[in-house]
Amino acid sequence: MNAISGLHEEALLAERLLARFAELGADPKGGITRPAWSEAETACHDALAEAAAARGLAVHRDAVGNLWLAPEGLGDRPAPACGSHCDSVPQGGNYDGAAGVVAGLLVALRAARAGIALRAVALRAEESPWFGAPYLGTRAAFGLLDPAELAQPRRGDGLPLAACIARAGGDPAAACTGRPLPEIARVTAFWEAHIEQGPVLLDRGLPAAAVTAVRGHLRHPAARCLGEAGHSGVVPRHLRRDPALAVAEFLMDLDTLWARQEQEGADLVLTAGMLSTEPDAATPTRIPGEVAFSLDIRSADPAVLGGMERVLAERAAEIGRRRGVSFALGRAVRAAPVALDPRRAAAIEAALPRPFAMASGAGHDAAEFARNGVPAAMVFLRNAGGSHNPAEAMDIADLMAGVEALWAAIRATGG
Amino acid sequence: MNAISGLHEEALLAERLLARFAELGADPKGGITRPAWSEAETACHDALAEAAAARGLAVHRDAVGNLWLAPEGLGDRPAPACGSHCDSVPQGGNYDGAAGVVAGLLVALRAARAGIALRAVALRAEESPWFGAPYLGTRAAFGLLDPAELAQPRRGDGLPLAACIARAGGDPAAACTGRPLPEIARVTAFWEAHIEQGPVLLDRGLPAAAVTAVRGHLRHPAARCLGEAGHSGVVPRHLRRDPALAVAEFLMDLDTLWARQEQEGADLVLTAGMLSTEPDAATPTRIPGEVAFSLDIRSADPAVLGGMERVLAERAAEIGRRRGVSFALGRAVRAAPVALDPRRAAAIEAALPRPFAMASGAGHDAAEFARNGVPAAMVFLRNAGGSHNPAEAMDIADLMAGVEALWAAIRATGG
Repeated sequence: MNAISGLHEEALLAERLLARFAELGADPKGGITRPAWSEAETACHDALAEAAAARGLAVHRDAVGNLWLAPEGLGDRPAPACGSHCDSVPQGGNYDGAAGVVAGLLVALRAARAGIALRAVALRAEESPWFGAPYLGTRAAFGLLDPAELAQPRRGDGLPLAACIARAGGDPAAACTGRPLPEIARVTAFWEAHIEQGPVLLDRGLPAAAVTAVRGHLRHPAARCLGEAGHSGVVPRHLRRDPALAVAEFLMDLDTLWARQEQEGADLVLTAGMLSTEPDAATPTRIPGEVAFSLDIRSADPAVLGGMERVLAERAAEIGRRRGVSFALGRAVRAAPVALDPRRAAAIEAALPRPFAMASGAGHDAAEFARNGVPAAMVFLRNAGGSHNPAEAMDIADLMAGVEALWAAIRATGG
Repeated sequence: MNAISGLHEEALLAERLLARFAELGADPKGGITRPAWSEAETACHDALAEAAAARGLAVHRDAVGNLWLAPEGLGDRPAPACGSHCDSVPQGGNYDGAAGVVAGLLVALRAARAGIALRAVALRAEESPWFGAPYLGTRAAFGLLDPAELAQPRRGDGLPLAACIARAGGDPAAACTGRPLPEIARVTAFWEAHIEQGPVLLDRGLPAAAVTAVRGHLRHPAARCLGEAGHSGVVPRHLRRDPALAVAEFLMDLDTLWARQEQEGADLVLTAGMLSTEPDAATPTRIPGEVAFSLDIRSADPAVLGGMERVLAERAAEIGRRRGVSFALGRAVRAAPVALDPRRAAAIEAALPRPFAMASGAGHDAAEFARNGVPAAMVFLRNAGGSHNPAEAMDIADLMAGVEALWAAIRATGG
């Protein structure tokens, strides 16, 4: 096989597998639905295993149902792994996770041919809608599930997580031992290709990017601003305690700070996803008594998140005092940023036709490996149409650019 | 009767009548409910008529059920009138309207004693919740109801307006002739006392104020800002089309302009009473695709309203362009400001212990008289607890301050 026909063969294999995954996940209501630990997810693993076996890889499933594909003769030796997940969100797209699983197979096939020790892996259950939490396949392999999580019903059919693992041929008890399964314990480094879930590569005209970190977040899912309701026509400005204008000022302060931080090169995104006056009481001629809102602030830099947390408290207090309202930011949900391995990220970036590195705003299995002390690296693939929806669109050529970068970086770093 | 015991007697009569009105309107669910053209409203008219007749006034009801109380011997001669309305909003307070009706009776009794030509009037149906439109008693007396309005069902019992007028002893056809009834045609000027529905007098420690105008409004009940939904973690600032931040900026611009206008002495109030991301799609981790909001802008000055209308369009376009969103302000509901008679307003202001004049942010029967070419004047009475709710609270002493000011102004201006 020469290099050019080999590339053609890889691209055709990728296309064929992704088409098969699309068939297996086709949802009559639209888009792709491959629930975690479902028959559709298992069928994707099986299709992958069949393609791997046909090309000489050894097929193995761990005790919680993750699929491992290794060169014959690697045995139990430690080695890097490359892969991602096959499950999707309900009515999602075909490429989130699946692209990285296919890339993992292509990289493992190259490694087998080159005599380099490396396994491909298809992890279970990365998406959170099914059991209310993400990275369950990876966390289960690390032995880190809480026994209480096993009772969690699956969205859609309500089957408890334990039963789902068992039906897929796994042993739910193995997910909660606090000790990693032998397969994941052998992973010396984790490499993952994944579609970019935002528009950055599309906007920059780049096929792929190295990922430096997974952003952490500070989230207030249910913040409120409490003021005083009143007749819209009769209360002069200085006697109002208007929570709508107070929240508008609060958001504008945060937006202004965001713009300034971005100019200074800080990594930051900020979203008020929910905003609402009282649904039953609000009318155009009533000063609202209360505004509910949410905040989601993300950064790859813990110092930026910490700084924003202080700003939130300070601005809420100052605006509250001045406008006669009170902010109740409510429950805070925090996740620390996860740094990916800088040496491997640099190797991926250097291997790209046009070097570019960025932070990931969404979580990934790679971050879960990193949190468990395994060096992790990621390459993002250009993707149109956003993610978690049927419009996801990735070119096979961009997948192949990611595979090239991973492969070059694995050889350059020793894996 | 000497002056002091006369004052006592007036205050006692006011207190007794208002207590009776409260009984007649007591709502088992709380507060006061006196629907338009209802038995409760008619019973208030009857209580007023009885008190007036006992003190020597002639009692007369016009063809649509408004109650007129005149000194014996005034006959059909033109004269000023003084009064307000007896109906309330559902579960409202006891003083909105009722205070002015009682003030009208007290002024008419003084006029009768002094030989001054003046009638008291209790108008029907000022509040809009009952048939979806305000000032119906006054508009009916001017012959200005649209025949289609007569079919409008009353909130609560669903009885058509025509049937309600007929049950209250009136003739619905008389409300639609396009010609004023003889009783209202005889009104040379209309004087109205009314509780202030905002907190201005309470805040300033004043019992009463002259009213210079009734604010007009520019209202957008269903404005929208359309952007592009996306994952909160992955879209950088410059690629977002975030309608929540765009609406926040829009409102802050309007608020800043409002503060500046107020400093320059312009009359203006501004309210975003409704604010909402898409109820079914919004989550904390999703950039909203759309924000719905309302605007209610009021001023006594048509030039200020016109200026605000231009600012809305200009800011919406500029912010929309810059942020990649589009504003659809939607249907505009406009009402022109109504100037009350300046000479009579000045006379009321001059008669107050501490002169003060202000615009009214809510509509009143007086404005309807003014719109129909009858010079109109109003005095506001201090009121705690807001209006249109059971917490309305007016002191009889403040009502009496309003009566004194009206009486002095009527004598000073010739009525």
